[in-house]
Amino acid sequence: MSELRQDPIAGTWVIVAPERAARPLDFRRPPPQPSARESCPFCPGRESMTPPEIAAVRDDKGWRVRVVPNRYPALRVEEEWRSGGDGLLASMPGLGAHEVVIEGPEHVLSLTELPPERIVEVVSMYRSRLQDLKRDFRLAHGLVFKNVGERAGASLEHVHSQIIAMPVVPERVHSEFERCAGYLRTTKRCRPCDLIAHELKEGVRVVAETPRFAVIEPWAAKAPFETHIVPRQHASHFEAIDDAAVAEVAGLLQTSLRRVERALDSPAYNLLIHSAPLNGVSPEGWHWRIEIIPRIAGLAGFEWGTGFFVNTVPPEKAAAYLRDLKI
Amino acid sequence: MSELRQDPIAGTWVIVAPERAARPLDFRRPPPQPSARESCPFCPGRESMTPPEIAAVRDDKGWRVRVVPNRYPALRVEEEWRSGGDGLLASMPGLGAHEVVIEGPEHVLSLTELPPERIVEVVSMYRSRLQDLKRDFRLAHGLVFKNVGERAGASLEHVHSQIIAMPVVPERVHSEFERCAGYLRTTKRCRPCDLIAHELKEGVRVVAETPRFAVIEPWAAKAPFETHIVPRQHASHFEAIDDAAVAEVAGLLQTSLRRVERALDSPAYNLLIHSAPLNGVSPEGWHWRIEIIPRIAGLAGFEWGTGFFVNTVPPEKAAAYLRDLKI
Repeated sequence: MSELRQDPIAGTWVIVAPERAARPLDFRRPPPQPSARESCPFCPGRESMTPPEIAAVRDDKGWRVRVVPNRYPALRVEEEWRSGGDGLLASMPGLGAHEVVIEGPEHVLSLTELPPERIVEVVSMYRSRLQDLKRDFRLAHGLVFKNVGERAGASLEHVHSQIIAMPVVPERVHSEFERCAGYLRTTKRCRPCDLIAHELKEGVRVVAETPRFAVIEPWAAKAPFETHIVPRQHASHFEAIDDAAVAEVAGLLQTSLRRVERALDSPAYNLLIHSAPLNGVSPEGWHWRIEIIPRIAGLAGFEWGTGFFVNTVPPEKAAAYLRDLKI
Repeated sequence: MSELRQDPIAGTWVIVAPERAARPLDFRRPPPQPSARESCPFCPGRESMTPPEIAAVRDDKGWRVRVVPNRYPALRVEEEWRSGGDGLLASMPGLGAHEVVIEGPEHVLSLTELPPERIVEVVSMYRSRLQDLKRDFRLAHGLVFKNVGERAGASLEHVHSQIIAMPVVPERVHSEFERCAGYLRTTKRCRPCDLIAHELKEGVRVVAETPRFAVIEPWAAKAPFETHIVPRQHASHFEAIDDAAVAEVAGLLQTSLRRVERALDSPAYNLLIHSAPLNGVSPEGWHWRIEIIPRIAGLAGFEWGTGFFVNTVPPEKAAAYLRDLKI
């Protein structure tokens, strides 16, 4: 059984999950190598190696997208919602959901190796899983994320993402809401709306545009070629997007990932869908976004201690490079 | 010339430092291997390989501690303090200091390989460097940190730490101050004082105690065997400690690092001295602390997106294990 604990000074949360290590002192072992094709539990024919299916897209030839619980979940829906600890040392049971979206039967490493219409099905599955998790009012927040490559934390090669839903809104997310709400109070304007208008007008950090979305290299990119996909219209909940938006996001995901893969020779990367909380209060003056973060440099003491990152490639230069790529 | 840029949504800062990469697209190369003895620029006889010395402890046999500017500084004192950008896209010149503390002439990897009285000189040097940097009123905040092992971001083996002083207080640090100030307003009590008293009374997460300090495994440890050294009396500025406290800290640093090295078979780790800002407003109801963070697990999308960490070793178990070690 895992437990959520809040840092009494910083307010951030940690999941203490002893059962994830096979033996008590098992953390000494080197990180696992991503599981290759021969032993891949996500390949067709090995469905019995995963816990029972939660959702799938299939026809008479078999499944194309498959969602299963994570075999080593950080959080579980079986827990009860209750506060623990005391005023100084707060805790909660490890309540939540931890799912894996297997994005295709093919043992490929990247979404970019799937045809466009299949990526639409994947993005549509992200949306429907978040819609379903939202029905459990105990789940405050959900994150769709993808780890590609060992440096980005992947333990399996086969193309997949993960979804974690948790009973609290992370402090890091909450502080974004507070900043944007403050701006709204002061200016009566939505800060992400202003930011996107500013970026589209200036143009130097824009990689691509569609009717509903913009692809930009953010002003304060934490890593070379960090790329954001942002809705141009005011929208806080990813799971509320319509089918036309799903199709546009899928197309931009494919081209954006392809550009980053081309620029950095298929780097390890994380992909994140930052969306408003599933339940509870909605943030005011805040937008959902997708982040693609190439994991080029490691995280040393300076980054850990300050949250500052050192980026050797100005985002304007990265944007110009990505725009010029033939993809 | 580097530039500080603030994330317009999250408020966090990034240092855009193009000159740190030798060539524009140089980020493709694999991370450098820590520099071994044969080519070590920190070994005696190779003093000309570093920029000119800022401070040192020496006698007629040579230097024992030596402070030099980082050869590839993220920030420089030559810059002027001025705000840049606009209301949405804030920036500042890359003003600050980036120093390296070479902690001994011996080519050893760890502070634990130096005799106790030498560690006293090292801790004393941290204090005097922060005191000196504090004289530059443009420098708001300073961080002493140590990267040991490639996984923790070290690019040189030879025992050393770094000090970065910056013109803004990091958002991450600022949010701790706000939480503690809120507690002080509500309860008229210092939260870290309450926390330390609570920990010493409960005892299960305490590894060691001295008259002035406690060594604890924190309630919400982000990694197995994360260890904090905290002052028992109210104290916000590390650089204000007296000689007796320097000696106690040095002793606890040595025994704490030795315990962590024993438990995890000399892991990569980061060491951080979190102290109050050098200049500007002092935080209310907040303490300085030293953090030792073994870098066992990588940082994947979940941690990156939420600030949540998954820790497989409950801190109570880690504390019991560390207390029982013969060191």
